[in-house]
Amino acid sequence: MKISKVNVHEQFERITDYWHPCVAASLNGQHVRIAKLKGEFVWHRHDDADEMFYVIRGRLVIRFRNQEIVLNEGELCVVPRGVEHLPVAEEEVHVLLFEPAETLNTGNVRNERTIDELDAV
Amino acid sequence: MKISKVNVHEQFERITDYWHPCVAASLNGQHVRIAKLKGEFVWHRHDDADEMFYVIRGRLVIRFRNQEIVLNEGELCVVPRGVEHLPVAEEEVHVLLFEPAETLNTGNVRNERTIDELDAV
Repeated sequence: MKISKVNVHEQFERITDYWHPCVAASLNGQHVRIAKLKGEFVWHRHDDADEMFYVIRGRLVIRFRNQEIVLNEGELCVVPRGVEHLPVAEEEVHVLLFEPAETLNTGNVRNERTIDELDAV
Repeated sequence: MKISKVNVHEQFERITDYWHPCVAASLNGQHVRIAKLKGEFVWHRHDDADEMFYVIRGRLVIRFRNQEIVLNEGELCVVPRGVEHLPVAEEEVHVLLFEPAETLNTGNVRNERTIDELDAV
């Protein structure tokens, strides 16, 4: 089997839609996803999955019901399962996500932003 | 529960030993580990764990028995379970690792580089 590498910066160049995660890598039943974010997402939670946000570029605010976290480049945060959160990006943000492969982007919410089938980049 | 963030760059400043991963975050039974690498490690494999290397700074070579991958900053690679590999860093490399929390750094090998108890940074 040939093992290959992934250039994350090149992959971001191929992403055109905001809030549309793509799968950069799969391992141990988990996904490494990358996404471009801009604007406000929707309040949601993942009942069975902790979710990690790692900011590659830009500044991401994650609002919780009782606190707010600001992630700058090189900063990460784990949102524990069951905790409602709202990601907000005033300007474009490039983010790497680490979460179980079956995690739905909008969690317990289903709306026009829900993406059932994730693409590889 | 108060959720906190992690500044990866600040954490690297606190790491003094090469080849000594520290736990930056835990989620879904997985670890996000960070490590400074320099020199040559040992040939090993992880029989039950895929392992991701994501280079934050520097240049990491991963040798396999039948190929070699060079990871520069912003590049990642998944080493599938069971595949022997040898990480080599000519100069200091800062790397972020994703792998199951129970993964031993030297895999199937036990020697002076084996670290049984990982610290948080």
